[in-house]
Amino acid sequence: MASPQVANGNGSLSLKKPSETKGKTITCKAAVAYGPGEPFVVENILVHPPQKMEVRIKILYTSICHTDLTVWQGQNESQRAFPRIFGHEASGIVESVGEGVSEVKEGDIVVAIFNGECGECVYCKCEKSNMCERFGVNPMKKVMEGDGTCRFSTIDGKPIFHFLNTSTFSEYTVLDSACVVKLDHGHSLSLKNLTLLSCGVSTGVGAAWNTANVHAGSFVAIFGLGAVGLAVAEGARARGASKIIGVDINPDKFIKAQAMGVTHFINPKDEEKPVYERISELTDGGVHYSFECTGNVNVLRDSFLSAHKGWGLTVVLGIHSSPKLLPIHPMELFDGRQIVGSVFGGFKGKSHLPHFATQCGHGVVKLDNFITHELPFEEINKAFDLLIAGKSLRCLLHF
Amino acid sequence: MASPQVANGNGSLSLKKPSETKGKTITCKAAVAYGPGEPFVVENILVHPPQKMEVRIKILYTSICHTDLTVWQGQNESQRAFPRIFGHEASGIVESVGEGVSEVKEGDIVVAIFNGECGECVYCKCEKSNMCERFGVNPMKKVMEGDGTCRFSTIDGKPIFHFLNTSTFSEYTVLDSACVVKLDHGHSLSLKNLTLLSCGVSTGVGAAWNTANVHAGSFVAIFGLGAVGLAVAEGARARGASKIIGVDINPDKFIKAQAMGVTHFINPKDEEKPVYERISELTDGGVHYSFECTGNVNVLRDSFLSAHKGWGLTVVLGIHSSPKLLPIHPMELFDGRQIVGSVFGGFKGKSHLPHFATQCGHGVVKLDNFITHELPFEEINKAFDLLIAGKSLRCLLHF
Ligand SMILES: NC(=O)c1ccc[n+]([C@@H]2O[C@H](COP(=O)([O-])OP(=O)(O)OC[C@H]3O[C@@H](n4cnc5c(N)ncnc54)[C@H](O)[C@@H]3O)[C@@H](O)[C@H]2O)c1
Ligand SMILES: NC(=O)c1ccc[n+]([C@@H]2O[C@H](COP(=O)([O-])OP(=O)(O)OC[C@H]3O[C@@H](n4cnc5c(N)ncnc54)[C@H](O)[C@@H]3O)[C@@H](O)[C@H]2O)c1
Ligand SMILES: [Zn+2]
Ligand SMILES: [Zn+2]
Ligand SMILES: [Zn+2]
Ligand SMILES: [Zn+2]
Repeated sequence: MASPQVANGNGSLSLKKPSETKGKTITCKAAVAYGPGEPFVVENILVHPPQKMEVRIKILYTSICHTDLTVWQGQNESQRAFPRIFGHEASGIVESVGEGVSEVKEGDIVVAIFNGECGECVYCKCEKSNMCERFGVNPMKKVMEGDGTCRFSTIDGKPIFHFLNTSTFSEYTVLDSACVVKLDHGHSLSLKNLTLLSCGVSTGVGAAWNTANVHAGSFVAIFGLGAVGLAVAEGARARGASKIIGVDINPDKFIKAQAMGVTHFINPKDEEKPVYERISELTDGGVHYSFECTGNVNVLRDSFLSAHKGWGLTVVLGIHSSPKLLPIHPMELFDGRQIVGSVFGGFKGKSHLPHFATQCGHGVVKLDNFITHELPFEEINKAFDLLIAGKSLRCLLHF
Repeated sequence: MASPQVANGNGSLSLKKPSETKGKTITCKAAVAYGPGEPFVVENILVHPPQKMEVRIKILYTSICHTDLTVWQGQNESQRAFPRIFGHEASGIVESVGEGVSEVKEGDIVVAIFNGECGECVYCKCEKSNMCERFGVNPMKKVMEGDGTCRFSTIDGKPIFHFLNTSTFSEYTVLDSACVVKLDHGHSLSLKNLTLLSCGVSTGVGAAWNTANVHAGSFVAIFGLGAVGLAVAEGARARGASKIIGVDINPDKFIKAQAMGVTHFINPKDEEKPVYERISELTDGGVHYSFECTGNVNVLRDSFLSAHKGWGLTVVLGIHSSPKLLPIHPMELFDGRQIVGSVFGGFKGKSHLPHFATQCGHGVVKLDNFITHELPFEEINKAFDLLIAGKSLRCLLHF
């Protein structure tokens, strides 16, 4: 079996004789997680051919989102499944397609989407929702939708589980075609920046644009200034929000944040009073929109209370793995504050991402500051350490 | 002191020489609650003259809403204040006005609103909200906003506390002018029906119209078929909802409900599976709008889950006196269900109620079935028993 050639970092791409691999099992490198929080083992695995309506892609770049970290750490036991290949933020090139796939073909540049769009379910057909009945987000799902089996196995043939419809910590991966978006024309983004649209940036900007519909002149508070929170800031800045308050316990984030439109900073550790009171003072009673991008329920309550009574909207983006319920009393809803969740920024991947990529290409959203590190794929454990230490926004891994 | 003459039930009104009472303390009947859940004592009390921006009205009809019941029973200790005059649903006639009041004058027909509209605060000036900074709903508030004292006292001079800006279980009461809406022209409602607009019917219909914005052809579920829930049904029916599912543990409610547009009934006691599953079956996955009108958190969870994923909206109307938090996990928000609270149906009392009264007069909403009982004011304890036993929707008390 030929080991397919790696694309170079400048975007000139080639698969080594794709016809040689098509229809066959590929042996390639992947980062396999064998247990909750255990270091990833970069080793050769087998990637089986795509089945009906599936696509096998060669990953060019993949990065690490906090959701990978959360599920890998396995705090929520029901989501545990090992061995597993994590990763859901990636750009790649189509190696081959399974029966019935017509939307993409060999050689297409694509990004993976963890929140798929089958185009046929009741949600996909409804403008109000970006859920998908078959390919929605489900951290417990660990096999392919089509036949309930895995496309990955260890060299000695034991199945390796999938993650979030994508499993991009592998040189090759197999996805349902509902989770693959072709993005190879109509924009001028580098392949590296394209990767950001796969999850983090789309999630944050979309939450500001689609879920909250941030208006010009409005006040915004963002809790958690990772890539997702800062993408919210970029989205809010692009919409003309007049105050964008960033809240983070890591003061290092404030420097990056300034470039993304954040106008005020609050480090909860420096405050004597509750953060929401501080925000209320800064904004004449509260923000129009607050965004929870940490996955911490106490922060969620702070962000809820930082929204203005009567009309303030809180958008929850953080993944909450704790079993704790919403720390809100039913009667607090009578104050007119609203709270909603946002998955993948409300974008329908296939329908909306190409246009969003074009907008990014035109500079409506600036992507340049999100990639803080680059490492070879083999150093994935180091990349996780960077995220855990709060040093990186996105660390790009290349093969 | 003249004991003012009681208006007769046909709407021909007269105050006995109002000039005789103006500026003076009135001695009249009221139903005083001396402790949580203790029977009301109907006795003579003193009602002091209205102060700056206040209005004294003679109550013609008052009825009992479940909110009176809840706070009177005092489950939530922080809301206890005795002796107190409850009641917030009433129509009446202005006896006299305090300094600065120009919106109403002696002899005007008015309804009391517990959710006032000062017209000047940040909420009153905003179209999105019907809150009022000074006269919003606050069951803990027990004195007049203006000077922090009471306008009621016992015959021997001890203060009696106010309730919900209104305290209508009294022949005379004093309200802030922000809580008085003139409704004496432009519609053809009887005085009895006018009383319903003071709380229950406006709350329910408004929740369907203003908060949820129910659309024609939609599916609706209503939990709790008291006056409030049935007013939601009337509002949904008027909007052309195609399925209106009523849920109540009291099967007697189903007969009344049919007249108000409810098309399907579910008695949770008759079901083996959870109510939300039953509703999901009836509606192809869930309703567009569900309304919680019981004040029970378990019911709240059922109503949340009965809404369709992706777009279903749950409107909370019930008063929850239990300290339990929302029984919703943050990640459940990712299913695209939304939840909001609704106070007084989202109506701004002064701005919207006159038009709503006109609509009711034109038969857009049918008011005839809401008044199930009428009793003399002295029999207020019997009226409470009827509500507690689930026998009445609204029992009108007349003086
Ligand atoms: N809803 C979605 O579709 C979606 C998509 C991607 C990521 N996510 C989630 O969004 C969240 C953010 O992801 P990310 O990749 O930006 O993570 P990240 O780790 O890069 O950023 C999280 C930030 O939150 C800060 N933080 C942590 N605890 C805090 C606290 N108590 N107060 C204030 N700040 C605090 C950290 O310092 C860090 O800067 C995660 O929960 C992730 O799982 C959701
Ligand atoms: N949000 C507002 O502005 C506002 C205004 C008025 C009333 N309320 C509240 O609305 C609620 C309804 O008021 P109402 O006057 O119509 O009360 P009500 O007592 O007339 O009706 C309540 C109904 O709920 C039913 N019920 C009770 N427990 C139930 C359960 N477990 N499952 C199903 N049904 C159940 C009862 O049988 C009854 O028919 C109360 O909580 C009241 O305090 C709110
Ligand atoms: Zn992600
Ligand atoms: Zn779908
Ligand atoms: Zn009421
Ligand atoms: Zn006001």
